[in-house]
Amino acid sequence: MVEASIDVVGIGNAIVDVIAHAEEEFLIRQSLTKGAMALVDAARAEALYAEMGPGIECSGGSAANTMVGLAMLGARAAYVGKVRDDLLGDVFRHDIGAAGVAFETPSATDSAPTARSLILVTADAQRTMNTFLGACTELGPDDVDAALIGAAKITYLEGYLWDPPAAKAAFRKALAIAHEQGRKVALSLSDPFCVDRHRAEFRELVERHVDVLFANEDEIRSLYQVEEFDEALQLVRGHCEVAALTRSAKGSVIASNSEVHVVDSAAVNRVVDTTGAGDLYAAGFLYGLTRGFDLARCGRLGALMAAEVIAHYGARPEAPVAPFIEASLHPVGA
Amino acid sequence: MVEASIDVVGIGNAIVDVIAHAEEEFLIRQSLTKGAMALVDAARAEALYAEMGPGIECSGGSAANTMVGLAMLGARAAYVGKVRDDLLGDVFRHDIGAAGVAFETPSATDSAPTARSLILVTADAQRTMNTFLGACTELGPDDVDAALIGAAKITYLEGYLWDPPAAKAAFRKALAIAHEQGRKVALSLSDPFCVDRHRAEFRELVERHVDVLFANEDEIRSLYQVEEFDEALQLVRGHCEVAALTRSAKGSVIASNSEVHVVDSAAVNRVVDTTGAGDLYAAGFLYGLTRGFDLARCGRLGALMAAEVIAHYGARPEAPVAPFIEASLHPVGA
Repeated sequence: MVEASIDVVGIGNAIVDVIAHAEEEFLIRQSLTKGAMALVDAARAEALYAEMGPGIECSGGSAANTMVGLAMLGARAAYVGKVRDDLLGDVFRHDIGAAGVAFETPSATDSAPTARSLILVTADAQRTMNTFLGACTELGPDDVDAALIGAAKITYLEGYLWDPPAAKAAFRKALAIAHEQGRKVALSLSDPFCVDRHRAEFRELVERHVDVLFANEDEIRSLYQVEEFDEALQLVRGHCEVAALTRSAKGSVIASNSEVHVVDSAAVNRVVDTTGAGDLYAAGFLYGLTRGFDLARCGRLGALMAAEVIAHYGARPEAPVAPFIEASLHPVGA
Repeated sequence: MVEASIDVVGIGNAIVDVIAHAEEEFLIRQSLTKGAMALVDAARAEALYAEMGPGIECSGGSAANTMVGLAMLGARAAYVGKVRDDLLGDVFRHDIGAAGVAFETPSATDSAPTARSLILVTADAQRTMNTFLGACTELGPDDVDAALIGAAKITYLEGYLWDPPAAKAAFRKALAIAHEQGRKVALSLSDPFCVDRHRAEFRELVERHVDVLFANEDEIRSLYQVEEFDEALQLVRGHCEVAALTRSAKGSVIASNSEVHVVDSAAVNRVVDTTGAGDLYAAGFLYGLTRGFDLARCGRLGALMAAEVIAHYGARPEAPVAPFIEASLHPVGA
């Protein structure tokens, strides 16, 4: 196996977020499921936007956020995803590149516009996402460069990729290449409803193909259709080399065949917007893995990254995150 | 004079802000004047964007920010400005409408794209703006509806309007209508370099046509080409009915023929981004004027609005501002 020239390559839906405050009552009136990601078509996206409050736009996309976090920590990160050659596509490309992530996937020139997610943030800092996939549906196996995947220590895939049909084939192709090259594959389950939509396939992936699994409490319970977190924990232990299970303020639980670690969440002055918490946890955790940190320290670095991103609007860090690497040597709890 | 159905109508350059962090050294390398607004053409905007860090996009425009602040306080606000029928134009129109401001100016359909300002925020929270005026150059006298101006207690004009040539004619038209109808005219000087570009005309405006003037320390010193703030204060007193002169952390000085008030700035935990400080000060101040508050209370409400907007990125309030109305009855200093 040749020396890896990239730490992590992420593959995901390339999305620009439109973030606005909303009242609880607005979610009810619009029949939205709080805390979840719903797929919407262009007409519904337009209708919802017309009813939403003033917003800010910032680049998002789950795996893209994770790659930006990795690059900000100093890792060599690359990204594969599909935007359109339009204004939001240019914004996405600018932002991920300016953060130091290699992003070479060509833009679609004749498709739906660049994807956007209308994100409604309630006073409790919960985010409810409404995603119009747009150009993401154009991502296919041809966009997966075997040399790129082969050059990365870890290929990181988001579960959301299972939604646009052609992306699933890209996902499978990347998985196969990574393993042929002796690399690791990481998967984030993304969202409990996404798990609902693709449970059988996700189970097969977790049992046979995934080395490192990221899931939050709702997602892992949905995967195994169990009520109790601990039950899911026991089930997942036999399946992946490493599972990092996040539990919001309760911290995270990291399980391998031989170890289980329970790591506190990091202190936050005021939680403003939880968008990106899981994405940035994964960034910190993956950074640790590529540097050979022990699993507990990987979890602490993940917790510190998540705490940074939930203290402000938007799903990518605002402040320098490199100091968290040193800080992750010590307890992170409030 | 018929009863006014609108409190304030603002006329200005309709702009979407692209906000990114920058190091001091980046400003030097790009020959940018810190704290100022520079006009850039499309090619320069593109080149600068390529070099900038990751950004967030949010609706801006000086007078537009002021109108949003007024609407958030509960005033009846309207806006006149020109966007293109493109994605950023849709964003601008959505955001100002969702904030409760009436905005009926038709979009340009065959012009440069919607204006954007590339705003670089340094660690000291100073913002350096690079504005591509785009569709703003299409704003002209035909966009000024006599009935709208006549219906507003105050017509608020931003000095930046003097930059695109046709907007100047719109500005003059609005001024004439407002005074014919017995309404008040307010002007913000916008930027010391803008004052430099149009000093003679601005002086004539201030001496003859403007009832309420907003300027910061640099702008008012530039207007009268004097070194000392106090000297400018003495000069402006004879010219406008009311002048509200802002001095950042030093607070503001409000002068009329018979009164001078020195008002403290309001406390801020951490200044993050000063973009919009003057715009939101004007919003609070104008709200007070339309409600018949005494001048000192107008200044305190302005200070509270400015303090809200500099505590986060972006030039429009994030949190509810209505409580500031009651708070402005009391001292606001740190």
